[in-house]
Amino acid sequence: MMNETVVMIGAGRVATHLAQALRERAGLRLVQVYSRTEEHARALAERSGDAVWTTSAEAVRTDADVYVFSLSDDALAGVARRVPANDGLWLHTAGSVPMNVFRGRARRYGVLYPLQTFSRDRSVDFRRVPCFVEGCTAEVTDEVRTLAKRLSDEVHELSSVDRAYLHLAAVFACNFTNHMYALADGIVRARGIDGSVLRPLIDETAAKIHRLTPREAQTGPALRNDRAVLNRQAAMIIDPDVKRLYEEISRGIYAERLKS
Amino acid sequence: MMNETVVMIGAGRVATHLAQALRERAGLRLVQVYSRTEEHARALAERSGDAVWTTSAEAVRTDADVYVFSLSDDALAGVARRVPANDGLWLHTAGSVPMNVFRGRARRYGVLYPLQTFSRDRSVDFRRVPCFVEGCTAEVTDEVRTLAKRLSDEVHELSSVDRAYLHLAAVFACNFTNHMYALADGIVRARGIDGSVLRPLIDETAAKIHRLTPREAQTGPALRNDRAVLNRQAAMIIDPDVKRLYEEISRGIYAERLKS
Repeated sequence: MMNETVVMIGAGRVATHLAQALRERAGLRLVQVYSRTEEHARALAERSGDAVWTTSAEAVRTDADVYVFSLSDDALAGVARRVPANDGLWLHTAGSVPMNVFRGRARRYGVLYPLQTFSRDRSVDFRRVPCFVEGCTAEVTDEVRTLAKRLSDEVHELSSVDRAYLHLAAVFACNFTNHMYALADGIVRARGIDGSVLRPLIDETAAKIHRLTPREAQTGPALRNDRAVLNRQAAMIIDPDVKRLYEEISRGIYAERLKS
Repeated sequence: MMNETVVMIGAGRVATHLAQALRERAGLRLVQVYSRTEEHARALAERSGDAVWTTSAEAVRTDADVYVFSLSDDALAGVARRVPANDGLWLHTAGSVPMNVFRGRARRYGVLYPLQTFSRDRSVDFRRVPCFVEGCTAEVTDEVRTLAKRLSDEVHELSSVDRAYLHLAAVFACNFTNHMYALADGIVRARGIDGSVLRPLIDETAAKIHRLTPREAQTGPALRNDRAVLNRQAAMIIDPDVKRLYEEISRGIYAERLKS
């Protein structure tokens, strides 16, 4: 296994975390990094032993075993068209891009979607990152699954269509959740209160749904449809967009309750 | 300290958790429980040693040291009017009710607001629950602070007005966040995927803001204003209310980014 080689196409957060896991956990050797941005390509190559870097998709070498495309969704198809055809296993890591973006460009291709949010300065234990795999044939799917299992203890096969829904759910669970944190932080900061007082509440909110469904875990004035509090709170919000969000999410919480 | 007595007015989740902490951490003796609902009053009294229970606010005894009102916001003022006047320290635990709900009813009164979400079946380490206190005089404030410090390592003095904003922030950080989990869970469940695959992502989203501000922690298509993904995802959502939320929260994330 130790002589398997990988080329990273992309050098952003997902690429950087995945490259590290591919080296340290799966034992692959990173031989080349492509990024449109020289600084990013060089930074990832330098932290990866003897890898070289390039800013030219056409200069990607053709003799590697695995090609991992970790690019923004809109860049992916264009770069995939410019990388020279080869016999390697082509994988992308995007939630909302169908596997067949590689069709006609590679013979063996698939998807390895790690469902996690990656930050520049936080290391992530890849064993605990659910990885969703897909391959262009049953044989390739097996190959991708085998590779993913060297990274993570939680590997699932998933179609491109279902992966798109999973990605949509991840936007709610991560980005939208984080936006709720940002709005909460803004409200307390405007009163001179440090946003860190909210952390135990945020932690417990996340911890609760390990035991309860989100519907069971819900509390608060919207769930009780406590109009006095709801009206008083809405009136405290100055930003009209945030006020509308407050009202719509409160309605949504109550609507969810009525369904049960 | 061990002979201090407390009456709980209310027997819901906050009352139950707080009663336990007042007994086990602060060493108070719970002597009586009032709840409009006999079943709740009896349940809390029974798990609290030799406390008696009542469903009549007028029957609340007058010789206790501390009276803790843990009621829904709209019930609080009415019950406070019916509890017989006495010389005890009256406290409520509500985020959005001003301290002066007790004015004219008690001589020594204040607020002890624990900022946490409590579930029936999850125990909470009260030492880590930020508690926000207020008193009708400087002397009473000291009394409430002293009591709160026997429960929690994190006690802050806060005015009624600021507490209302903190409660509003808590609604975003907890209830609205949990609604995002519920929507995410609904999206994956509709595809036959178990919602538990989202948990590592949810946990990491919460953990990130211990190191980064929510604004720094943000990722995803809305932040990049990646229109192709945003349009594709919006089109996948059937429920018009959820679709509108998707679009408004996405706009909010991008607007937050433009502010920086």
